Amino acid sequence: MKMSGGVEWALHCCVVLTTSSRPVPAARLAELHDVSGSYLAKQLQALARAGLIHSVQGKSGGYALTRAPQTISVLDVVHAVDGPGPAFVCTEIRQRGPLATPPADCTGACPIARAMWAAETAWRDALAGISIADLARDVDVDSGPEALATVRAWLTGDPTG
Amino acid sequence: MKMSGGVEWALHCCVVLTTSSRPVPAARLAELHDVSGSYLAKQLQALARAGLIHSVQGKSGGYALTRAPQTISVLDVVHAVDGPGPAFVCTEIRQRGPLATPPADCTGACPIARAMWAAETAWRDALAGISIADLARDVDVDSGPEALATVRAWLTGDPTG
Repeated sequence: MKMSGGVEWALHCCVVLTTSSRPVPAARLAELHDVSGSYLAKQLQALARAGLIHSVQGKSGGYALTRAPQTISVLDVVHAVDGPGPAFVCTEIRQRGPLATPPADCTGACPIARAMWAAETAWRDALAGISIADLARDVDVDSGPEALATVRAWLTGDPTG
Repeated sequence: MKMSGGVEWALHCCVVLTTSSRPVPAARLAELHDVSGSYLAKQLQALARAGLIHSVQGKSGGYALTRAPQTISVLDVVHAVDGPGPAFVCTEIRQRGPLATPPADCTGACPIARAMWAAETAWRDALAGISIADLARDVDVDSGPEALATVRAWLTGDPTG
């Protein structure tokens, strides 16, 4: 199973955006993460299309979270960047071949698809249960409260953020 | 998140193989599923490499499950065909840029990776909890007990399988 590498960048950006009360320019986020601005712009645009961040125009413009980080789940970010579709796609194999099940008898999902999708639901439920605020708190616990404060000061040029 | 389409074919083949006490030729499995023999061969070879099925040579040769379907989990099949690696790959973004965390301070996984991998563990646990025998039973429940018996008779040319 493969996930878009953009999810990792998008999650890091969201955590970083929790530190600042001001919009953060995309170029500043790219510089902080030492990544190409055009690559990061794609992930930021995906987050913006999903309504998780918004762009503020003007001299002090940039990106900001649209709502409290407690209300943005990791699943929201994954769906924004990687799409909401299932990883397992059922192509109705049971309807193929000489012993095909007639379409009229296939009103419910195939038992194999049901099993695969139930597991994906467990994965989605786990991601829905973690917020961007949870991640920021875990970074604080791991790196100490000065780590995100240092990021905030660097992003805004102002220790009060 | 994307999963190899081969997983679906491999799961259907495993369920079908529970019906027969004799090896089933790969060409017969491809015909049953109305799919290219060369495409299905790839999935069968992946299952064989993982030790879930084995090839029996000779006139009555073909593929058979190597062990009881109660002991083959859906996760075994997914790992065989799609690989055992994580969907989320951590590239240690925290170690990049002007505020990089020193490698010496990154002995544990990044909080973001931990969250993503915990969700994947929930997914794997769900798939590990379902066996090929469970899937075959669910097909029986959905399609009636004659469905897999019909498959067995068709595969082997013998209603006693």
